[in-house]
Amino acid sequence: MELWGKFLNLQADIRKINHAVALLVWDQQTYMPVGGTEARAESLGYLETLAHTKIVSKEASEILTALEYQSEDPEKGPLYRAAKRDYDHAVKISTKLVEEMAKTSARAMTAWQEAKAKEDFSLFENYLEKLVDLALQKADALGYSDEPYDALLDSFEPGMTTKDVEVIFTKLKEASVPLVKEIVAKQGEKPAIFAQDYGEKGQWDIGIKALHEMGFDIDCGRQDYSVHPFTISFDPQDVRITTKIDPRSFPGSLFSSMHEGGHALYEQGIPKEWRNLAIGSAASLATHESQSRLWENIVGHSRGYLSHLWPELQKTFPNQLNKVDFNTFYSAINWVEPSLIRVDADEVTYNLHIFLRFEIERELLNGKIKVSQLPEAWNEKVESYLGIKVPSPSLGVLQDIHWSQGSIGYFPTYALGNVMASQFYAKALKEQPSLSDSIAKGELLPLREWLRDKIHSQGASLLPMELVEAVTGESLNVTPYLEYLKNKYLG
Amino acid sequence: MELWGKFLNLQADIRKINHAVALLVWDQQTYMPVGGTEARAESLGYLETLAHTKIVSKEASEILTALEYQSEDPEKGPLYRAAKRDYDHAVKISTKLVEEMAKTSARAMTAWQEAKAKEDFSLFENYLEKLVDLALQKADALGYSDEPYDALLDSFEPGMTTKDVEVIFTKLKEASVPLVKEIVAKQGEKPAIFAQDYGEKGQWDIGIKALHEMGFDIDCGRQDYSVHPFTISFDPQDVRITTKIDPRSFPGSLFSSMHEGGHALYEQGIPKEWRNLAIGSAASLATHESQSRLWENIVGHSRGYLSHLWPELQKTFPNQLNKVDFNTFYSAINWVEPSLIRVDADEVTYNLHIFLRFEIERELLNGKIKVSQLPEAWNEKVESYLGIKVPSPSLGVLQDIHWSQGSIGYFPTYALGNVMASQFYAKALKEQPSLSDSIAKGELLPLREWLRDKIHSQGASLLPMELVEAVTGESLNVTPYLEYLKNKYLG
Repeated sequence: MELWGKFLNLQADIRKINHAVALLVWDQQTYMPVGGTEARAESLGYLETLAHTKIVSKEASEILTALEYQSEDPEKGPLYRAAKRDYDHAVKISTKLVEEMAKTSARAMTAWQEAKAKEDFSLFENYLEKLVDLALQKADALGYSDEPYDALLDSFEPGMTTKDVEVIFTKLKEASVPLVKEIVAKQGEKPAIFAQDYGEKGQWDIGIKALHEMGFDIDCGRQDYSVHPFTISFDPQDVRITTKIDPRSFPGSLFSSMHEGGHALYEQGIPKEWRNLAIGSAASLATHESQSRLWENIVGHSRGYLSHLWPELQKTFPNQLNKVDFNTFYSAINWVEPSLIRVDADEVTYNLHIFLRFEIERELLNGKIKVSQLPEAWNEKVESYLGIKVPSPSLGVLQDIHWSQGSIGYFPTYALGNVMASQFYAKALKEQPSLSDSIAKGELLPLREWLRDKIHSQGASLLPMELVEAVTGESLNVTPYLEYLKNKYLG
Repeated sequence: MELWGKFLNLQADIRKINHAVALLVWDQQTYMPVGGTEARAESLGYLETLAHTKIVSKEASEILTALEYQSEDPEKGPLYRAAKRDYDHAVKISTKLVEEMAKTSARAMTAWQEAKAKEDFSLFENYLEKLVDLALQKADALGYSDEPYDALLDSFEPGMTTKDVEVIFTKLKEASVPLVKEIVAKQGEKPAIFAQDYGEKGQWDIGIKALHEMGFDIDCGRQDYSVHPFTISFDPQDVRITTKIDPRSFPGSLFSSMHEGGHALYEQGIPKEWRNLAIGSAASLATHESQSRLWENIVGHSRGYLSHLWPELQKTFPNQLNKVDFNTFYSAINWVEPSLIRVDADEVTYNLHIFLRFEIERELLNGKIKVSQLPEAWNEKVESYLGIKVPSPSLGVLQDIHWSQGSIGYFPTYALGNVMASQFYAKALKEQPSLSDSIAKGELLPLREWLRDKIHSQGASLLPMELVEAVTGESLNVTPYLEYLKNKYLG
């Protein structure tokens, strides 16, 4: 077979294994009975290792070396470079380490769920110690110049260093802390309209309506329940999201659906002809998060879209909302208030949750704190940044799934995603000023098309910072985000 | 590594791949959006091929040859022999054929679902032609003395020939046809209590109650919906079943749950220490079906167990059943009547559905009829055996999923399972005469324990006919089954 054909076949084989890996993960978090944990861990470990072995195989190395001359070809170059990047990254990590990470995290996830349900950090502690140790091994294998965190961050956000994040986070922090104070001072008394029985079905239906309006293709995806909402793609034509619904309050699940839906639109928008190629992936996690948070916050929490949803909401929840006027509803939806759970945080205090995770992770990796000290460290930071006490581990250190998956160095991408989202949306509005009117009519497809054209359809052809430049003509900067917040909350 | 260690590792690798394969299949039939078909077919094809490649690898061959001397070892022998049987079977089939069968059936399954929904056999016809062709290729590869059907049957029911089946089916047919007539003549007018709105939830709950009483371990399994109910095992600690519920009638779903639950108990009863070995499987499909049909019919349709369920049923369906007396209910549940759908057929006419499938499959493989003639051939047979006209393909030739999965030669195992079930149950009653009293009290665990001890825990250590001999002291014979039917319906 000719060389390029071999290259395509190898890429496809890797994708076919990863398809199964993704399903094993999805099922573990949605439907798998608890007894399945051990066999699942073994199967996941085996297949992740297999994919890794394929990526770094001698054959792959030979093919990539022989095709080096294609790397600047206008058509084949981007396909080649994305695959080469994956290879260069993967080849540094031993198969043994990949297998151990996969097995440990599969077991840790069940332990985390149990620890969270039982409010007992100690049930998760040993697993997390092992995962931190594995993360350090991974960082060593990948190499870094300043600190281990650099290596981990780079694997989620190619080209970005811990220092880069620190610079951006410092600017955000300097602006956020007084901004929160100013907004909170300006707010009156919080409308007590959400903490009541909203049931499950109506919330599910509203989420599905929003997903439909966003253009989420239900023939090429689905929504299920899980403890921690997530998006996972098996293929551009099979993209799954999950949500969780608290029947005793609104509107967590609507925005969870829009958030994951934003991720899903990205994955559904990746060209089908790239389904079996490394280039058929998102540019980075922050880029991914820019999409989810754009839909969740900039669209979902906007006066325009909410006013469009309002009649439907009043119809669905007559007992809860019929006596409420829209302005009260809007201000309650956009209420700014330090709170315990990151995924439920308003968009202004949200980044504070990220700063504290970033700092804790860094300290953990630099050996400044131990896993056993995490609950305490967490609670202190929450009190310092948010001014509130953490009543129990499930509302504190155990709230997020990420560490149980071995994802350390991941959290910063959320705040970077916020920054990126505003930058993208500002550009979209400049090019298509009618977008905000469309949104107010519930017509979300023009925005999806713009995002698909500029971002989704690019797959991993550009590095994230290249993508930001290509789409907005500027490098990543916090100005549009801070302007968006000020205009919305103080404007 | 020592040789036996290598043997165990290789077996485990195969199981880890098959775990993912099973999940890919389960998801395809339960939750996968239609867009996922193509990528799923590719992933399934890849992984099934990979498992096959592992089973028949040079390494496997060398290990098995070097370990030949272990084959009569009291401890290792059974483990060795089960693996060797798998090897001997798989090595005859080319990897290319395995891949093509996997890919074709993954696509055919979606086509079958569509064809069934649209009542249009032609949408499925091309896929089925391809599958029949592949089945013939498989038969040629496996080899046979009399006809291609022998080879296919043997791969589901090791050691059994088409002639063996014909002998048993002839005896059954000779007894069944007059038996059906006699029972139907004895019956009065059918109580019209089932064709009304029973809703979904109550039916689901009753099915779950029965599963619970059967000792189905919900921490090591689950029940979902699918078009065609099935059981699939990822591991003895993760065994999934599905059901379908027609809200406008009773009691399809209860017996579907008990049927699949019977399969699931078999899988959950396989020793955990065999989870990664070829011996950690059921003995055969007929053996499997003996379990499902024992629970569905002999237990589920018995006067004893139904009288136990009766108060709960009346409570769950007050509008539908409160004015019905138990004897009417019992006779309606056990009503004998030729009907269109195999899975809904009563236990007396059930085998007629199997005879016609067996004959049609045989004719198809022997080239006596073409795929395009199937609907006609089907409808004629149904009229001849059951005396009724088929109104539409979904109630006829498109009703079963099996062919879309490439499972040709599978159906006879259902009728053989009926025969085996009665033989096992007669033996169980002989050893533990109190079993029927327990069942009438809803205490089903003693029966499960007996089956687990005698059958489930044996895995694939014996060939099916060896198992029948070992459990009952007799070879497979139709006498207990025919006696059971006569006692129950004419006694």
